[in-house]
Amino acid sequence: MITLYDCATAPSPRRARILLAEKGIAHATVQVDLKTGEQLGEAYRKINPQCTVPALLTEEGVMLTSNAAITAYLEARYPLPPMLGVTPMDKAEIADWHWRIEFEGFMPIAEAFRNTSAAMLHRALPGPANYEQIPQLAERGLARLQKFLMDLEEQLHNRDFVAARQFSVADILAVVAIDFARIVKVRPDERHPNLLRWRAAMAQRPSMAL
Amino acid sequence: MITLYDCATAPSPRRARILLAEKGIAHATVQVDLKTGEQLGEAYRKINPQCTVPALLTEEGVMLTSNAAITAYLEARYPLPPMLGVTPMDKAEIADWHWRIEFEGFMPIAEAFRNTSAAMLHRALPGPANYEQIPQLAERGLARLQKFLMDLEEQLHNRDFVAARQFSVADILAVVAIDFARIVKVRPDERHPNLLRWRAAMAQRPSMAL
Repeated sequence: MITLYDCATAPSPRRARILLAEKGIAHATVQVDLKTGEQLGEAYRKINPQCTVPALLTEEGVMLTSNAAITAYLEARYPLPPMLGVTPMDKAEIADWHWRIEFEGFMPIAEAFRNTSAAMLHRALPGPANYEQIPQLAERGLARLQKFLMDLEEQLHNRDFVAARQFSVADILAVVAIDFARIVKVRPDERHPNLLRWRAAMAQRPSMAL
Repeated sequence: MITLYDCATAPSPRRARILLAEKGIAHATVQVDLKTGEQLGEAYRKINPQCTVPALLTEEGVMLTSNAAITAYLEARYPLPPMLGVTPMDKAEIADWHWRIEFEGFMPIAEAFRNTSAAMLHRALPGPANYEQIPQLAERGLARLQKFLMDLEEQLHNRDFVAARQFSVADILAVVAIDFARIVKVRPDERHPNLLRWRAAMAQRPSMAL
């Protein structure tokens, strides 16, 4: 059976969780306890040598070990409803925003969090290797995050979805990033009316409660 | 006519340059002089508000302003030869490695370079906003780059291509990253025999001279 290796409190596996729900794909879930470092233990390392969640065991019995792999696989194997666009131009716009949200939103939040949190000491990056915290990188992450919120606010002016006038992985990742920003005490506010309107609309989708 | 906004000496537009060549897509090229900061000037800002190269003007007259957008568009609009895989599992493996090479290879090199080079003062990140250099991030980039080379060496054991037993965007980005590493004085060596074998084979493709 399709199995998602998940952690209910973590943003990265939430991307896969929402994607599976939006495509209506039945699956089992195994919780991996990031708080106790289960992802670095021998048992999970055999499942995913990258020591990250999510991982997805496919129907064919292959383990996919990144959101990149999971997203590409699920879209090709279960094309409907499409989450990466259908026309070349829609695919371009969705891929563009998906990439921007990852590099300009999601990563800066992770940088701000992982480079300051006491719980993340020596764990400035996910994965099997330890990296020391860099306080300046946390500061830069917070600055970039403010810029990202304004860019997303501008993009959502007169739009119901982040990209290509349709619900897509860009909306999924944007919701995950915006919600994740709380961990560094950043929330959209009165400077971001379109972002708040879009986030409220997204909350109507059952997948977003996951 | 399809037009690539390029910079002959820069690694990011090289990704698009090679992709266009591998798909055999005729196009015009406009050079943007990154050395004099042309990408930050008013004229180019109107072409690409992100102030980055590559940008691609499509046949339909739409400007695509990131490799993410360009890659998704070209694969959908000109499907042959495929560069993102065809089967769900091949697509997964190619997307996985493409993502890993970007985050674990290409970005660490950029971090090592942009956070130390005198020419990149205040320009630790591409784009319209200035960010100060963080020397610790350069050091971390060099450490991650060494790990990436070993991971890629291991992946290329008994393989002719990075992913899914076929030439793909993963090979393109890996070549661009490995060659770009010279800028921080890192080159594959006797510790990386499979990587050297693969790079020599890649050199047989005319696109790689671009």
